[in-house]
Parts: sequence; structure tokens; C-alpha cells
Amino acid sequence: MSTPMFEKIALIGIGLIGSSLARVICRERLAGHIAIATRSAETLKRAEELKLGDAYTTDARGAVRGADLVIVSVPVGASGAVAEEIAPALKKGVILTDVGSTKTSVIAQMQPFVPEGVHFIPGHPLAGTEKSGPDAGFAELFENRWCIFTPLEDTDPDALEKLSEFWRRCGCNIDTMDAQHHDMTLAIVSHLPHIIAYSIVGTADDLETVTKSKVIKYSASGFRDFTRLAASDPTMWRDVCLHNRDAILEMLGRFSEDLASLQRAIRWSEADKLFGLFTRTRAIRRSIIEAGQDIDMPDFGRQAIGRPQAAQPQQCKAPGVCLVPSSGAAP
Amino acid sequence: MSTPMFEKIALIGIGLIGSSLARVICRERLAGHIAIATRSAETLKRAEELKLGDAYTTDARGAVRGADLVIVSVPVGASGAVAEEIAPALKKGVILTDVGSTKTSVIAQMQPFVPEGVHFIPGHPLAGTEKSGPDAGFAELFENRWCIFTPLEDTDPDALEKLSEFWRRCGCNIDTMDAQHHDMTLAIVSHLPHIIAYSIVGTADDLETVTKSKVIKYSASGFRDFTRLAASDPTMWRDVCLHNRDAILEMLGRFSEDLASLQRAIRWSEADKLFGLFTRTRAIRRSIIEAGQDIDMPDFGRQAIGRPQAAQPQQCKAPGVCLVPSSGAAP
Repeated sequence: MSTPMFEKIALIGIGLIGSSLARVICRERLAGHIAIATRSAETLKRAEELKLGDAYTTDARGAVRGADLVIVSVPVGASGAVAEEIAPALKKGVILTDVGSTKTSVIAQMQPFVPEGVHFIPGHPLAGTEKSGPDAGFAELFENRWCIFTPLEDTDPDALEKLSEFWRRCGCNIDTMDAQHHDMTLAIVSHLPHIIAYSIVGTADDLETVTKSKVIKYSASGFRDFTRLAASDPTMWRDVCLHNRDAILEMLGRFSEDLASLQRAIRWSEADKLFGLFTRTRAIRRSIIEAGQDIDMPDFGRQAIGRPQAAQPQQCKAPGVCLVPSSGAAP
Repeated sequence: MSTPMFEKIALIGIGLIGSSLARVICRERLAGHIAIATRSAETLKRAEELKLGDAYTTDARGAVRGADLVIVSVPVGASGAVAEEIAPALKKGVILTDVGSTKTSVIAQMQPFVPEGVHFIPGHPLAGTEKSGPDAGFAELFENRWCIFTPLEDTDPDALEKLSEFWRRCGCNIDTMDAQHHDMTLAIVSHLPHIIAYSIVGTADDLETVTKSKVIKYSASGFRDFTRLAASDPTMWRDVCLHNRDAILEMLGRFSEDLASLQRAIRWSEADKLFGLFTRTRAIRRSIIEAGQDIDMPDFGRQAIGRPQAAQPQQCKAPGVCLVPSSGAAP
């Protein structure tokens, strides 16, 4: 049997991402030893109950001692404090990475504390669900998702390749880009959708003319889709807003402009303009499905859950089958 | 064996809703005869290939002759023309209903043409997917969804009860309200979400700084959810915008206000305000799941499709199981 990729992996933070990592590291046997550290004693206890690793501590510095891979999976606003805490215990040659949704800010927070001889490689696996905490993770979370690295100028190519191989074995495809471009890209594909979802759910919550119970009852007509994103971890998303401010404001500005233009088209009954916009957006959906980034089932396959045949087209077996037996035409 | 609820049902329009009706009417044997009419010869041919009914025609007036239930399932902008066309052939005592997403406008368009002795009961089943056309329908579409009636002042209670029973047997729960309130409610739970989804997908499509291929690749981080709504039928949604203008503009105004306020909180790093909004929206998601209007699985259960165990939490069976055999700790 081959030796694992890393002798000891330290996971700092054991929420949705950290605990999914623990599970896939275990399944793929990527580590000889998994050390888990989190600030909350309660979360730590739960991680231990779930048997997510080999050692459990609230002392992040202790956890990273002797590790050859350290993965920081905490809200981006806590990155600097974590780096400061663990820095003195990092061994020479260790790979230090993170999973944060913003990269410029994480680099600015962590890099000053990174000791000589430590390979700091900022990373971001584009994977998640709206659930949080150690119970929410699962080993398949990263399958066919992208992991983006934003390497620094002096990043060691061998360390980058080793970390890439680690994420590939977790299920990811690998991309690299600079941190600014990452932050601008994520602002449109992830941050703006979440912010808008949070906002519209707030708008609905505030209405006087339509009761909350009606919004809930009738939510299957579109609204419920937004409530999923708006059920994501509040601490994580507060930090994303605070730490990718400029890119988010840029995208929000563009969106507001476009929405105002659409609002105007509705006010003035510009039928062709509305039809034009509503037509061109279909192509992107098709491309996303072709790229394997969403499933090709109506309504995200909700109808099929627990009832696999339900979303299949059905037909009357023969003309006249709908006639009642007394008419003589039914089978 | 009991006789069917209706001797002859005429379906005018055979898209997602019409063809789902055809399938459930067949499955539940709610009609002795299903007549299908649609304007497009191509769609009609497809409906016939799918064996969705007993008779097929592009002549709506011919289709409704002798029917005791007529269901108009066309884009709301076409309601008036359909009513005008079929009116002369409607028999006395027939129930005439529709499935349109806006009710004030549909009533204004259709009512002037409704002959004496015809029970016109405007209706709206809150059900659908992003797919369109006769191939997209399925018999389970209406299960546990709400069907809202907006009866007129002189609506016959027996006819209303018979139509309610019909929709219940299709799987729906029934509500009634006045047309204005329906339009205001749907503007927030359905129309605004679709319009915002179309708008943000357009914004992403227009960017110069982030390529379309990157938006597609990385869409699983949030964006892809919006592309589903934005892949809905353009004709239907153009008509909704044109025919529920005032309620939509009202809701868009509120949303823009709230989004501007959120944008300001991001610009000025108001952490507590962001955290507050991102926290309160979670409760609505929980209520929607408790009301049976969405499934309680992470990511709409996408991970579970075709891999039912995938979304289940996994754990290492025992501490040390991750250790390689040579360490002596593995099973």
C-alpha cells in the first residue's frame, strides 16, 4: 500500500468546507494523520463525535505543529488572526493554503505572518451548499468543481503541483489566476447572486401588502430559489462583503444600471426589448449544463427526488385510452 | 366504474401547463374526451405524436364545441384573442377557465367576450419549470402546488366547487382571492424573482472584465441558480411584464431601494447591518421547507440525483482509520 500524500494535515476550521475536506481526505487516504482545530469548543466536540479526524483541539498553533499541509477554512475576516496564531509553529517546507472566497484580502491578511520556508498558496474551491457546520459536510462536495489558486510571485512550482494534485484527488479541476481577477470573477458568479438573494428575501419579509405566510405558501413560483442562497452562513457572507468590497460595488453598480433599464422597458411596455433580453439568457443556461456545472433536469430535479420516474414525460398509451370503459375504447 | 368529471375537456394551448394537464387528466380519468387546440401546426403535431389527447386541431373554436370544461393555457397577452375566437362555440353551462400568471389583465381581456350562461372562473396554478412546450409537461407537475382562483362577483358557487375539485384531483391545494391581490402577491413571489434573474444573467453576459466562459465554468458558486429562472419561456415572461406592470413596478421599486441600502452598508463596512440582514433571511427558508414548498436537502438535492447516498454525512468509522496500514492503526 502506498504512503499517503501528506503525513499530517491540519484543518483549521471544521465547518462545511473543513468537514467535507476531512471526509474526502479520509476516504481517499490522503493523510497519515488529520489534526482538527476550531475556536468553538462545541463545534470541536461535534467534529469528534463525527470522528472526522485523529486529533482535536481548540489550539490552532498546536494543531499545525509537524503538519506538512495546513488548510485554513475560516470566514475570510479571521484569516489574519489565524495566520498570526499558527505562524510560530509552522515547520519548514509545509504547504499553507486556505479556501476563502476572497483572495486579495486573505493574502494581505496572511502573508505578513508567513515565515521563511513556508509555501503559502492561496486557494479557493468553488464548492458549497447553503448548510453550515461539521454536520453539513460530505466527501463528494468537490466533485467536478473548480479549485482556483492565486499563487504569489515566488510560489514554488513543486509545492503548487503537489497542492494541485491534492485537490484533484478531492475531485476538483484546477485553475490559476491572479488574486484581483479572482475577486472580480467571484464578485459576479458568486457574491452578487448571494447579495441579491439576501436582498430580495429581505424585501419580501418587509411587505405590508402581502403577508409572510402567503410568500411562503406560494414560494414555489420562483421565490424559493432565492431563499436557498439567502440561507447561507451569515458570518461567511458578512466577511465576503467586507473583504471584496470594491469588486462587489462595481458589479452591484452594473446590475442596478441594467435593472433600471429593464424597469424602464416594463414601464413603457417595450415588448421587443423585453423579449430580446428574455431570449438571450437561455443560451447561458444551456452552456452551463453542457459544461457539467448544473444538472439537465427541470426545476433542478426537485420533482425527481424520491420519485425517480416523476420527471419523465408520460403519455396516454393510445388515443382513446382516456375514454371510460363504457365507451368501449379503453383497454 | 364512475363516469369522468367532465364529458369533454378542451385544452387551448398545449405547452408546459397544457400538456401537464393533458397527462394528469388522462391519468386521473377526469374527462371522457380531450380536445387539444393550438395555433402552431408544429406544436399540434408534437402533441399528437405524444398522444396527449383524443382530437387535435388548430381551430380553437371547433375544439371547444360541446366541451363542458375549457382551459385556456396560452401566454397572457393572447387571452383576449382566444376568448373572442371561442366565444361563439361555447355551450351553455360550460366552465371556462385559464391558467395565466396575471389575473386583472386576463379578466379585462376575456370577460367582454364571455357569453351569458358560461361560467368564467379565472385561475392560476402556481406550478411550472423552466422548460416549455408539449414535451416538457408531466402529470405530477401540480402535486402539492397551490391553484388560486380569482372569482368574479357573480361566479356560480357550484361551478367554482366543481372546478376546485378538478384541480384538487390534479394534485393542487385551492385558494381564492381577488384579482388585484393575486397580481400583487405574484409580483413578489414570482415575477420579481424572474425579472431579477433575467437581469443578472444579462449583466454577466455583458461584462468585459470577466469572460463568458469563466462565468459558465464557475457558475456553481451561486450564479447557476439564477440561470434556471432566466431560461423560462420568453414569450410568457414578456407578457407577464406587460400585463402586470403596476404591481411589478411597485415591487421593483421596493427591491431597488433595499438593494441600494445594502450597497451603502457594503460601501461603509457596516458589519452589524450586513450580519443582521443575512441572519433574518434564514427563517423564511425554514418556513418554506416546513410548508412543504421546497425540499430539505442541500443544494436542492442536486448532489443526490443519481447518487442517493452522496448527500448523506459520512464519517471515518473509527479514530485512526485514516492511518495507513503500516502505522498499525488501520482495520
